[in-house]
Amino acid sequence: MAEPVVGIIMGSQSDWETMQNTAATLDRLGVAYETRIVSAHRTPERMVDYAKTARTRGLKVIVAGAGGAAHLPGMVASMTPLPVFGVPVQSKALSGWDSLLSIAQMPGGVPVGTLAIGRSGAVNAGLLAASVIALIDADVAEALDAYRAEQSAGVAETPSDSA
Amino acid sequence: MAEPVVGIIMGSQSDWETMQNTAATLDRLGVAYETRIVSAHRTPERMVDYAKTARTRGLKVIVAGAGGAAHLPGMVASMTPLPVFGVPVQSKALSGWDSLLSIAQMPGGVPVGTLAIGRSGAVNAGLLAASVIALIDADVAEALDAYRAEQSAGVAETPSDSA
Amino acid sequence: MAEPVVGIIMGSQSDWETMQNTAATLDRLGVAYETRIVSAHRTPERMVDYAKTARTRGLKVIVAGAGGAAHLPGMVASMTPLPVFGVPVQSKALSGWDSLLSIAQMPGGVPVGTLAIGRSGAVNAGLLAASVIALIDADVAEALDAYRAEQSAGVAETPSDSA
Amino acid sequence: MAEPVVGIIMGSQSDWETMQNTAATLDRLGVAYETRIVSAHRTPERMVDYAKTARTRGLKVIVAGAGGAAHLPGMVASMTPLPVFGVPVQSKALSGWDSLLSIAQMPGGVPVGTLAIGRSGAVNAGLLAASVIALIDADVAEALDAYRAEQSAGVAETPSDSA
Amino acid sequence: MAEPVVGIIMGSQSDWETMQNTAATLDRLGVAYETRIVSAHRTPERMVDYAKTARTRGLKVIVAGAGGAAHLPGMVASMTPLPVFGVPVQSKALSGWDSLLSIAQMPGGVPVGTLAIGRSGAVNAGLLAASVIALIDADVAEALDAYRAEQSAGVAETPSDSA
Amino acid sequence: MAEPVVGIIMGSQSDWETMQNTAATLDRLGVAYETRIVSAHRTPERMVDYAKTARTRGLKVIVAGAGGAAHLPGMVASMTPLPVFGVPVQSKALSGWDSLLSIAQMPGGVPVGTLAIGRSGAVNAGLLAASVIALIDADVAEALDAYRAEQSAGVAETPSDSA
Amino acid sequence: MAEPVVGIIMGSQSDWETMQNTAATLDRLGVAYETRIVSAHRTPERMVDYAKTARTRGLKVIVAGAGGAAHLPGMVASMTPLPVFGVPVQSKALSGWDSLLSIAQMPGGVPVGTLAIGRSGAVNAGLLAASVIALIDADVAEALDAYRAEQSAGVAETPSDSA
Amino acid sequence: MAEPVVGIIMGSQSDWETMQNTAATLDRLGVAYETRIVSAHRTPERMVDYAKTARTRGLKVIVAGAGGAAHLPGMVASMTPLPVFGVPVQSKALSGWDSLLSIAQMPGGVPVGTLAIGRSGAVNAGLLAASVIALIDADVAEALDAYRAEQSAGVAETPSDSA
Repeated sequence: MAEPVVGIIMGSQSDWETMQNTAATLDRLGVAYETRIVSAHRTPERMVDYAKTARTRGLKVIVAGAGGAAHLPGMVASMTPLPVFGVPVQSKALSGWDSLLSIAQMPGGVPVGTLAIGRSGAVNAGLLAASVIALIDADVAEALDAYRAEQSAGVAETPSDSA
Repeated sequence: MAEPVVGIIMGSQSDWETMQNTAATLDRLGVAYETRIVSAHRTPERMVDYAKTARTRGLKVIVAGAGGAAHLPGMVASMTPLPVFGVPVQSKALSGWDSLLSIAQMPGGVPVGTLAIGRSGAVNAGLLAASVIALIDADVAEALDAYRAEQSAGVAETPSDSA
Repeated sequence: MAEPVVGIIMGSQSDWETMQNTAATLDRLGVAYETRIVSAHRTPERMVDYAKTARTRGLKVIVAGAGGAAHLPGMVASMTPLPVFGVPVQSKALSGWDSLLSIAQMPGGVPVGTLAIGRSGAVNAGLLAASVIALIDADVAEALDAYRAEQSAGVAETPSDSA
Repeated sequence: MAEPVVGIIMGSQSDWETMQNTAATLDRLGVAYETRIVSAHRTPERMVDYAKTARTRGLKVIVAGAGGAAHLPGMVASMTPLPVFGVPVQSKALSGWDSLLSIAQMPGGVPVGTLAIGRSGAVNAGLLAASVIALIDADVAEALDAYRAEQSAGVAETPSDSA
Repeated sequence: MAEPVVGIIMGSQSDWETMQNTAATLDRLGVAYETRIVSAHRTPERMVDYAKTARTRGLKVIVAGAGGAAHLPGMVASMTPLPVFGVPVQSKALSGWDSLLSIAQMPGGVPVGTLAIGRSGAVNAGLLAASVIALIDADVAEALDAYRAEQSAGVAETPSDSA
Repeated sequence: MAEPVVGIIMGSQSDWETMQNTAATLDRLGVAYETRIVSAHRTPERMVDYAKTARTRGLKVIVAGAGGAAHLPGMVASMTPLPVFGVPVQSKALSGWDSLLSIAQMPGGVPVGTLAIGRSGAVNAGLLAASVIALIDADVAEALDAYRAEQSAGVAETPSDSA
Repeated sequence: MAEPVVGIIMGSQSDWETMQNTAATLDRLGVAYETRIVSAHRTPERMVDYAKTARTRGLKVIVAGAGGAAHLPGMVASMTPLPVFGVPVQSKALSGWDSLLSIAQMPGGVPVGTLAIGRSGAVNAGLLAASVIALIDADVAEALDAYRAEQSAGVAETPSDSA
Repeated sequence: MAEPVVGIIMGSQSDWETMQNTAATLDRLGVAYETRIVSAHRTPERMVDYAKTARTRGLKVIVAGAGGAAHLPGMVASMTPLPVFGVPVQSKALSGWDSLLSIAQMPGGVPVGTLAIGRSGAVNAGLLAASVIALIDADVAEALDAYRAEQSAGVAETPSDSA
């Protein structure tokens, strides 16, 4: 099996319901990845280790999902030069407003590319990661082109009451 | 000079305009403190060191100020058992909504006591830190009582046009 | 049984569903507490009495939970020098935005350390109260360290579909 | 001079810039009033006294202005059966969102009639107080009718570039 | 039966679920009222008639509930000198944020005393109306005092798991 | 059957649940329309074709519904001189706040007339489109007048518990 | 001079600073219009008259601008079958959030096509009105096409430091 | 001079004040780029051309900045398989809330990696683009590592009053 080039990390087991959509998207595009629970707050040392070794272990992109005061994407970005994409997980009380702002509003110097709140964002994190991998892997580039073409072709012309 | 019992940290030099109000409040109450710039994103290792050594160095309380995707208070709280109080610094575009949510909406397990956005919050972080120190330092308790009494006494009875 | 050192108060019976998480957290850490319904709006005199006698009755920390125009934490803080931590209870229409702002945005001079909205905030209020008590009670300090270590150890390495 | 029937109170001297618009409106309508600084947080005892004696001192309506975590209107309403109208003073960081929610979102049982944020709300608090007084004072009713008629008559037919 | 002194109006039948709480509160306090559906948008002429005849028909207070772009309270206030209290009905998509702002943010000159969103606000509109009527009706004043005393007495001392 | 004069388009099949209310409203008013799924993001070329040919194919008005980062209405408006009305579809995490702002906050130069979020907005898009068609079709004008009269007549005088 | 086909109305003289952009846009496109100050709250009768006579006086479209609890566009729409477009004027405290929601979130049955907050929205209201008039006036259609072509042609290829 | 590998595009000349920070960041890291004004709304055809030819012209990453109903990043992403990063430009009335949501809340299928509002986001878009280029260009990788090291080294230990 191919070495993982994308690391999918999340703050807790409960985020997996959202983040599995990133994994499924990468599966479909033939991009090798790994999945880890890395809590910024409950396992800060694991997070430091993960972030600092990511590049040398061969990862090219990190996708990090978290909710509420979502610090994981930004903290990982502070400790790796790899591109980091953040997925705001929908939170209970504030529906993801907190997650979105905690991930997107990073100060100048440490970037996180933020996707939409929830499932759509997790799918898109997979696609965005794949678009980066596509720059160095022609098979992924081809798979991504096919995915996009199928997606366009799959849009019906007219709405259907029975759909 | 007394050993510092409160650590005032902030994400950047520009936060000092806000956080000096914490320092001034502690000065007035006779609480010894130290001030450091500790950027969660630009100096993550310094942050880890600071948080992990805080208790053994004799600190009792940490006050952390940051703006935008403000991760400093929560990340420090993840690495020290000391009480951590967070001050959301007013941000440029979103006026501190992002700072407030990034600090207050911590997941269960890692608490940060969050104060108001900006100057009022920084003053109050000093008062709250002092109220904790007052539990172990009778002089501070007395100073805090005096501060509160003076504050109440200083409220005029009627509004004044020339004020 | 030990004398309570933490007072857990709330604006109404309906807040108990949230605030019992503070009690459960303190139970686990061996911190003695009392629980009271103290409505700022429906029982203002009870609130005044509670706040004014808290210190002399031996309390060290007050945790106050309330929702909507949540005035209880701030009003109690105005009448006691003890540290007061506020838990914004999730409200019906506005999901806790009102609770959060009513508690966090205190004016300079009267601090409330605000936790997250809802259950997570209630758990964290217990932990934050315990971190203060830990400064004067070595058993609590030890229990808190153990809690934090267990919490970190309990985070699985990889997400699980069957979780 | 007539005994005051409206009490205009505010949390601090700085609120007077806003609340003087209530006073000016009542002046114009011939309604007698008093003005007091009554801080819920810095002078809670003064607030309790003020609220509890308001009816017996002859007041008919209370207008309370405050900003941020604005507890004054709701707390006064908890201690008097008189109608209480609240004016959210525009706050620095959050522009009055916090003031508005802290005043308007009162729990069932203790009502505050909330006006708009800032100057418009202060003018309207005066008009609303006068509309209540007009029920028991024919002169005020007449003055209010005249005010409203003048206001309507004063609206130009077409916009003017030089206005 | 007594002539109604309070008019409870609402924008549509669906608002009755909320506004019946105003009626129930007035029932309990012995305040006579009438209820009408008066849609600002679908029956503007009925609204104009209602507002313009309200005072001469003997009403002393109007309570108006509406949701979304809630124009009813403000428009009625523009056509009657009576005190108008507005209840923001919880809306589907925006949970009442739109209702609250559409009612509370009236321009200077035409006041609406705004209550909380939803059921609590409707109860409080009844109480606030009664507090105005109490100024001219000793029976209502007495009933309101009793209501408030019962309310305070009904708050349990401690939270109960079985509640 | 009459040639369609209104084009109802939407970003995905799932938007039909909302947008069918536009169609039903136009059916009732006798306005001929067509319905198409035109995704700004998944079928950009279809969108370009649709927008560019709309006028020459005989359409007079376009109604476009979309949710989240809702670009369809604005993009279509950039490529046709016809009046474009946008319906913000209620989104999952943010309840339509994102849809509303993405449609309403168009830069100067390219207008979209935005309706309310969700079903009400879709009904109103049909009515607004009909009000434009009514300027050139007397039958539609008459039908619209009748619709409005029926709507007013259908508002009950008093709320009903059994409704 | 041509009879006006567009009515530009606004709630107060202060809205003219915004709404003159609608007028200027219509001037440029050769669309005849009239301007009136029509306050929903201060001159409700003038508003009723204006709305009810608009169609018979020959108007085809109404553009209404207002700020805060902006009821003018929706109320006018309730009393005329003409298309009504609303411009949310930027408000002082809430920057137009209140204006936007008060105009856009109309209930089903009475549509208002809402533009962006402030100047851009006023320009676009002119363009949208013109796009409706263009359906019945070939000169306006031509002028609008020219406007759009010039607008596209006027966009520079590359950004300039000296611009 | 090197062929550009990053395309920096923006909706209008006025966005350049923000987006020049992306350019300056890429200059410092030795990444070749091009800058273009590409308005989604005023020059939709230019946008289509730009997006469709981007990959074949040799670009590897696109950075798109826009404000308000910011459609440029998402629309470009719909027409190119390259990674697209979006910078929400701070808007006048809503301070960038609209820009942020219009860019971040993309539907599943078409990803945009969103940065913070304004200047910080523009700097970070340059860094994120560079982190992608670094995967295929060792010089950029080295420059980025140096940038990050310098950034960390440049954070002072303690705040300074004279800073």
